[in-house]
Amino acid sequence: MTGTVVAVDVGGSGLRLQTCAVRPGAVLTAPGVRVGAGGIDVAALVADARALLASRAAGGEGEGEGADRGGRGGRDAESGPGAAAPEVVVWSMRGLLFLADRTEVLRIVAAGLGGRRTVVVSDAVANLVGATGRVGPGAVVAAGTGAVAFGTDFDRQWRRVDGWGHVLGDAGSAAALGTAGLRAALRAHDGLADGSPTLLGLAVDLLGPPELWPRQVMTTPDAPERLAAVAPLVSAAADTDPVALALCVRAGTDLGESLLRAADGLEAPHLAATGGLLAAAPVADALDRRLALAGAHRSPAHGGALDGALHLARQLRDTGAIPEHPAYLVSC
Amino acid sequence: MTGTVVAVDVGGSGLRLQTCAVRPGAVLTAPGVRVGAGGIDVAALVADARALLASRAAGGEGEGEGADRGGRGGRDAESGPGAAAPEVVVWSMRGLLFLADRTEVLRIVAAGLGGRRTVVVSDAVANLVGATGRVGPGAVVAAGTGAVAFGTDFDRQWRRVDGWGHVLGDAGSAAALGTAGLRAALRAHDGLADGSPTLLGLAVDLLGPPELWPRQVMTTPDAPERLAAVAPLVSAAADTDPVALALCVRAGTDLGESLLRAADGLEAPHLAATGGLLAAAPVADALDRRLALAGAHRSPAHGGALDGALHLARQLRDTGAIPEHPAYLVSC
Repeated sequence: MTGTVVAVDVGGSGLRLQTCAVRPGAVLTAPGVRVGAGGIDVAALVADARALLASRAAGGEGEGEGADRGGRGGRDAESGPGAAAPEVVVWSMRGLLFLADRTEVLRIVAAGLGGRRTVVVSDAVANLVGATGRVGPGAVVAAGTGAVAFGTDFDRQWRRVDGWGHVLGDAGSAAALGTAGLRAALRAHDGLADGSPTLLGLAVDLLGPPELWPRQVMTTPDAPERLAAVAPLVSAAADTDPVALALCVRAGTDLGESLLRAADGLEAPHLAATGGLLAAAPVADALDRRLALAGAHRSPAHGGALDGALHLARQLRDTGAIPEHPAYLVSC
Repeated sequence: MTGTVVAVDVGGSGLRLQTCAVRPGAVLTAPGVRVGAGGIDVAALVADARALLASRAAGGEGEGEGADRGGRGGRDAESGPGAAAPEVVVWSMRGLLFLADRTEVLRIVAAGLGGRRTVVVSDAVANLVGATGRVGPGAVVAAGTGAVAFGTDFDRQWRRVDGWGHVLGDAGSAAALGTAGLRAALRAHDGLADGSPTLLGLAVDLLGPPELWPRQVMTTPDAPERLAAVAPLVSAAADTDPVALALCVRAGTDLGESLLRAADGLEAPHLAATGGLLAAAPVADALDRRLALAGAHRSPAHGGALDGALHLARQLRDTGAIPEHPAYLVSC
């Protein structure tokens, strides 16, 4: 079968869409927050996705700023003016897990975009499929601003670990590492023995005097992002500062614990890790050492959530089958 | 000298006022938040304090709800209808340290309430004087919703330790203990080895399903109070749950570290600890053990910030002298 499939990835910073008939088209993006404190704005999602598909059908690929023209396939030769309704549409949504009305979301996006089959998956599932490149037993830990691990065999076990936000969890995330770095900086400021004068100097350069820090990160809506922005200072300082190194090792170890727990009980799981914090060598090294202690190892991540959504869409088109789970993966 | 002095304590939950000529009068209160994210509302403070003083002068002590009639002295015999302007007024203000315009605050409150001399002190200073019952070398750690230590000899050394808020510090506070308890609960929920199933059960009873917790404590303005409300669960569980006990020991140890650092360098300092968290025996015990390791010990706290402000007011009235510090204690 070669009908067109559509993958949509909805995150906190915008919406990304990719179509595929034979080979994947370019990634189209609609910037702007789509998952906020009030939940998911489904009507806005549908409008964004329709506009991107229309621009594509009219040959106006990319819509100016925000378009990622670095996609692997360039234009999708099979789509163009007059392209038929998609065969399959798969939406990956951050925050889906926390919605009571997942099937209602499914109904609205299915009506809004057309398509013979529509699937809505948690970004945990899309990340896993994207990272491991397959629909099979596996686990992935995502270490971005937040941190969450997810493991499943797409049958009886579906397990999420952490992802509780920067106040209550997200162990090993950039926000957690940045927070720990600022705490160590302030303890140096206060003259406590376990503080880091190095991190204090770096953080003052970034954020100004310590007296200004609490207001920046306590109850501001973008507190996690502000805290995560400190993480690169900590990982960069790990080469010379023992406190910073210890914090990075802790972050990587935490990520490893979450990943192992997510995979616990799976048969020969593929393991992967994604997210910007993995670019920090002392974090990634500690993660790998923790996995090795358990006799496990991870493979390089194939791709991201959009790739995973596209993979699921193609599988559904080609086989007619897709796993189901009331919280993680619903279809119609 | 027996002129009337007035002490005012301004905190996050309201304003408390006490007068004294020979013996202290009842504590009068004006509820309502006076220190918010936008800083101190000085005009509202002055209006509240004037109303309380007027109600007192007119014999209408207490003004209905909000009045604390449990004060130690009952009505102040020397004040009443037609009472003269106070000799000395001392204001203790939470958040004063973070104001750039402390002398402007001083000017406004002095003009608003009258009084021959007016003093504005940080609540750190008022807490210390109230807790140790004297104006001399000492340090106090306050363990309430937040945690901050302060030590001074009222001359060359004035040192604040921590008080950075629940995201960046407040080590050993009720908010920190509650946060740690919720983290341990969620780690049990996720099946991680270091979690506490006991705390999970208790926290679900208090807050509902874990899925609802992040939104309650991440960016809500009252997040510290919500987190602090979990602390009693943790300290109560410490009798039977090793994870809860370890968290309480950590909190008490953190408080001890902050107190010792605040006192470091002072000559024969008096040490004290205040705040609701000290009612938790495993926390208080750990604090005392940490002090003992350093060859130190604390005395029971005499009183609170309002007592400290009153002490300073009487000292200024009786001796004509009061210490000065641009950030902690300004007078005119």
